[in-house]
Amino acid sequence: MTYTLTDLQHGKAEVRIVKVDRGSDDHVLHDLNVTTQLRGDFETAYTEGDNAHVHATDTQKNTVYALAREHGVTSPEDFLLTLAAHWRTQPWVSGTSLSAEQFSWLRLPTNGHSFVRSGQETRTALVETDGDATTVSAGLTDLVVLKSTGSEFHGFPRDRYTTLAETDDRILATSVTATWQYAGTPSSSGGGYDAAYDAARAAMLDAFAGTHSLALQQTIHAMGSAALDAVPEIARIHIQCPNKHHFLVDLAPFGLDNPGEVFFAADRPYGLIQATVAREAG
Amino acid sequence: MTYTLTDLQHGKAEVRIVKVDRGSDDHVLHDLNVTTQLRGDFETAYTEGDNAHVHATDTQKNTVYALAREHGVTSPEDFLLTLAAHWRTQPWVSGTSLSAEQFSWLRLPTNGHSFVRSGQETRTALVETDGDATTVSAGLTDLVVLKSTGSEFHGFPRDRYTTLAETDDRILATSVTATWQYAGTPSSSGGGYDAAYDAARAAMLDAFAGTHSLALQQTIHAMGSAALDAVPEIARIHIQCPNKHHFLVDLAPFGLDNPGEVFFAADRPYGLIQATVAREAG
Amino acid sequence: MTYTLTDLQHGKAEVRIVKVDRGSDDHVLHDLNVTTQLRGDFETAYTEGDNAHVHATDTQKNTVYALAREHGVTSPEDFLLTLAAHWRTQPWVSGTSLSAEQFSWLRLPTNGHSFVRSGQETRTALVETDGDATTVSAGLTDLVVLKSTGSEFHGFPRDRYTTLAETDDRILATSVTATWQYAGTPSSSGGGYDAAYDAARAAMLDAFAGTHSLALQQTIHAMGSAALDAVPEIARIHIQCPNKHHFLVDLAPFGLDNPGEVFFAADRPYGLIQATVAREAG
Amino acid sequence: MTYTLTDLQHGKAEVRIVKVDRGSDDHVLHDLNVTTQLRGDFETAYTEGDNAHVHATDTQKNTVYALAREHGVTSPEDFLLTLAAHWRTQPWVSGTSLSAEQFSWLRLPTNGHSFVRSGQETRTALVETDGDATTVSAGLTDLVVLKSTGSEFHGFPRDRYTTLAETDDRILATSVTATWQYAGTPSSSGGGYDAAYDAARAAMLDAFAGTHSLALQQTIHAMGSAALDAVPEIARIHIQCPNKHHFLVDLAPFGLDNPGEVFFAADRPYGLIQATVAREAG
Repeated sequence: MTYTLTDLQHGKAEVRIVKVDRGSDDHVLHDLNVTTQLRGDFETAYTEGDNAHVHATDTQKNTVYALAREHGVTSPEDFLLTLAAHWRTQPWVSGTSLSAEQFSWLRLPTNGHSFVRSGQETRTALVETDGDATTVSAGLTDLVVLKSTGSEFHGFPRDRYTTLAETDDRILATSVTATWQYAGTPSSSGGGYDAAYDAARAAMLDAFAGTHSLALQQTIHAMGSAALDAVPEIARIHIQCPNKHHFLVDLAPFGLDNPGEVFFAADRPYGLIQATVAREAG
Repeated sequence: MTYTLTDLQHGKAEVRIVKVDRGSDDHVLHDLNVTTQLRGDFETAYTEGDNAHVHATDTQKNTVYALAREHGVTSPEDFLLTLAAHWRTQPWVSGTSLSAEQFSWLRLPTNGHSFVRSGQETRTALVETDGDATTVSAGLTDLVVLKSTGSEFHGFPRDRYTTLAETDDRILATSVTATWQYAGTPSSSGGGYDAAYDAARAAMLDAFAGTHSLALQQTIHAMGSAALDAVPEIARIHIQCPNKHHFLVDLAPFGLDNPGEVFFAADRPYGLIQATVAREAG
Repeated sequence: MTYTLTDLQHGKAEVRIVKVDRGSDDHVLHDLNVTTQLRGDFETAYTEGDNAHVHATDTQKNTVYALAREHGVTSPEDFLLTLAAHWRTQPWVSGTSLSAEQFSWLRLPTNGHSFVRSGQETRTALVETDGDATTVSAGLTDLVVLKSTGSEFHGFPRDRYTTLAETDDRILATSVTATWQYAGTPSSSGGGYDAAYDAARAAMLDAFAGTHSLALQQTIHAMGSAALDAVPEIARIHIQCPNKHHFLVDLAPFGLDNPGEVFFAADRPYGLIQATVAREAG
Repeated sequence: MTYTLTDLQHGKAEVRIVKVDRGSDDHVLHDLNVTTQLRGDFETAYTEGDNAHVHATDTQKNTVYALAREHGVTSPEDFLLTLAAHWRTQPWVSGTSLSAEQFSWLRLPTNGHSFVRSGQETRTALVETDGDATTVSAGLTDLVVLKSTGSEFHGFPRDRYTTLAETDDRILATSVTATWQYAGTPSSSGGGYDAAYDAARAAMLDAFAGTHSLALQQTIHAMGSAALDAVPEIARIHIQCPNKHHFLVDLAPFGLDNPGEVFFAADRPYGLIQATVAREAG
């Protein structure tokens, strides 16, 4: 029996590249984890093991390193666009999904070439092409934030299986995963993709802190709206947040009160809330 | 400025439930990690922090445990269908995505209630509803397999960035992630979802082993086709495989040959190949 | 100011080697993760950056691969002994700590060269030398076991901070980490280190299953004693077990009983119990 | 046959506690992961399942939470000392090993109760008691640092298995794990354990950056000495550093040079170097 083949993709995942710009005494690091995926006319590799159209994943890896040298790395988005432009011209390739994680480093004050890894979060970027069309997305994962007050949760429906007490003061903690899509190159702010990333991140942090939260949903909406407010080129943003529950420990059995001071930070299960906030109807 | 809200979902992730059937001296374990996501009329939670429509994720967790007691757990798919039937009747809910991982245990011969965790792979299940429509999918992750011969890779195009040598004998190793969608309840084989899972898994293993591989793509196609051959109710299967590279170590500098005996198992980067094999055109 | 330097060690960690024995159509895999650590007269590397005595860790890695080809790999213990014999003869080396993890594979029935990763646990081995003295240890990690009945816990002291209820029927689950030291080569059973490992593992599983447990401590003692019973060359065994708590879910709020059927498998915190069982007083 | 039991320990591992100090509008967070281990007269639990002397691990967990409320949490070391003082007075307990990880948070500028997780590294603390004796240790893990120049490696011995080229300019990157032991309470600097931690961390970072490195060993010695210089109460420090290799990519096949710009960041294997630097001979 013959079946239908679709969704054919191949590439090299997690190409770890560190690019050092030595143009001045203050070195600049770009520490990326790049994944390539090519789509196209690859069917005979699957059906017959004929690799005549298969851009070997090892070649894709080499291309990442070579193009980093030839074209440099500024932002992860720009680098992925460079890669996309290369593969767009290759035979048998009809589309690509190119993604990157970028890890942040802080330069130490001692000299210009010593660094310490900073931050918990990872910046992400995604460039997708389909024929002549190109989509650029950016985002972050593992941005871990916490409010020790200013969060309530009540008014939810109670059914046979509801036991949760209402609260007007709880810890709200989450690890933000966000991905936003650009409608155009973020040049208005003058700094391109890096400045747009910084502005979106700062806006989300500010919205998280500044929102008196009646639900994690409300906070997500506020963060998404803030990113759209801050960067006009962002067309839409998807945010996914686990509710990292911090349970107030019942100290009454030990003759102690617990006025919002001692919490158990739970692992699993966790609430999981998500939404997309878009500049225009989708 | 007002933005558009879409993709609203909330639920409880990673509800770890172990259900013990004590119906006979040979206990039966179902060890599941369940994630629920509800979709529906939840917008005011996001825009105003009004939770009147929000089925609290704590309630969803309780529901998982209570329904496991009330209805029992047979297969993960059947249990998720039980949960789906419950939430379909709840106000404000228009759709659900309910997923589970199932971990496998082997009963020890000493008695009927002692077990050892077995296998590397995790069985997965996914039930999605949208109004009256229901889709049941199943799959597995982390099925790690290796062939120490019977794998070649050559005939790929060579461009400026190609350095990979062709080979007619290499180690082929991967960690299979597969997800297949059922067109109907897999009853023909008599064993329902459990038997269908076992049959699909066995067929994929057999295809992996039995395919003399000219490309990992070819092996993926063979595994997908074998699953479709083995279980008639499977409509389509998506398979994603990292190419877990095992590089032959060059021992010539030490005056030694290496006739396919000593390999370095690399971590990153790795090839990443995927495809969907469908019974009918998509 | 001058300080004192001690505990100088360097080596290559996590050398991933897969050795394929192709002596017959049924290939044999040894899949190891080897870590080397050399001790000796290395002080000037620390104090002056003078590497004249430093066996480069890259050289140590090469040595692992080369000696695997020259001497073959039978058991991990024997392979580490081969490495130890090599480095014992090197200048400036006074001692070594050589360890390995071994991952298990099951040959698929289709042919002699296709394998699936099996088991959750990892076999471990450690060879330490100090001058002419050699110590061989073996063990395992991540052997995950569970009893769905046959476990009690009561009679513990109650103080101001005690809230735990006593129980005469609970789930007992753990992930065994064990390390045992050989007083001599385990030859009596005819199979060397591999047979000794299999015998110790089987004895521990049997003791876990067969012990009606009043405390995880008691089960640990039974497992350790069983390993000593099973393999006369084992001098002592250290066992460390997390108590992977499975809490009976209170279903009473939902009008349901829960006669030992529905459990929440918790992540953290977990009990952590350990002991050494020795053939003779330490 | 009767065997000897030693190394008896039990406790609760990974008690996740977040303590919020609400004494002012600027809240203070202590986010700890506490592990307790008690040693003492616990043998009958192992031999007979008699728990009369067993301080239940659940009680130990409760004690952590209750004492955090009763005594507050300042530094992790001080909190562990509070716990140690409690268990020292309990019957059947002869010694303890109490450890903690502390995760760092940065207060956001918006208000006094919103935080973002900061830094990659985790602060660690360990208090051990044996009868009346108490030892306080502190440290850190996962302090990831990198120098993009100012690191050489040459002059190492070459034997049959040596292929590594010498280099006078390489990336040096590592993830520092350090543990130091206090000879007395670090009060001289005025800030207690927190100020001592900050001073030791800063001194190590400064030494890493400021040392022109001829070997990672030399850098380790410099970091250890710097910590001893900075905090007079530190008696000894143990440092363990993986050499996180960054390999210069050979771009010559593509007609490109690579003057220290494009690197592959490898995972495994990695060099592993360690040493103890002590104020006085050990």
